[in-house]
Amino acid sequence: MDYEAINVREKIGLLTEQWQPRVIAELNDNQFKVVRIEGDFLWHDHQDTDEAFLVIDGILRIDLPDGHVTLGPGELFVVPKGIRHKPYAEKEVFLMLIEPRGVPNTGHEGGDRTAELDVWI
Amino acid sequence: MDYEAINVREKIGLLTEQWQPRVIAELNDNQFKVVRIEGDFLWHDHQDTDEAFLVIDGILRIDLPDGHVTLGPGELFVVPKGIRHKPYAEKEVFLMLIEPRGVPNTGHEGGDRTAELDVWI
Repeated sequence: MDYEAINVREKIGLLTEQWQPRVIAELNDNQFKVVRIEGDFLWHDHQDTDEAFLVIDGILRIDLPDGHVTLGPGELFVVPKGIRHKPYAEKEVFLMLIEPRGVPNTGHEGGDRTAELDVWI
Repeated sequence: MDYEAINVREKIGLLTEQWQPRVIAELNDNQFKVVRIEGDFLWHDHQDTDEAFLVIDGILRIDLPDGHVTLGPGELFVVPKGIRHKPYAEKEVFLMLIEPRGVPNTGHEGGDRTAELDVWI
């Protein structure tokens, strides 16, 4: 039988809303998620896990306590566990997140920007 | 301070040998590795873990016990834990692997195609 590869850009094309990560694959207890973001997010951290950002299209800035990192297409950055960070995209950015299942996008900050977990696309 | 993003293609450009995965980042106990491959590999499996393949450039075929999957650039496939598989690339393929730290490329098959683990680039 023919198995189907997961086309990351195709999956991103299915996203109808910004800031709502959607799961496209799992690796053991980790998830690959795609998300479209634009504008500013809130400062938050993840006390129990690192979080990987891989930019597919656009320019992403991640502010960190003592500086920032800028990622273009094909660039990867891992925010270490417990480090506060704030993603920012002047124009819309398409990205893939890799992190353990069950990690809320806002860490323990909560609030109305908290996205639903475990939604597949 | 300015942190540096990891440019996946730049890292691949530093690879001097085929079939030798090199670590570019870690996410908790998982590693992101880049590798250049061409030709056939051996059938193997990983009894304790899934293994994710993300193709950066080229066309990768992964043979599976009951079929195969073909991946082009920007396509992802996760080989489930314990499933035998054999990567094949007619022409050179650049890819990223995501899997836990300490997973040998040949599973428990061993032999002279077994690459050194935990080598960073």
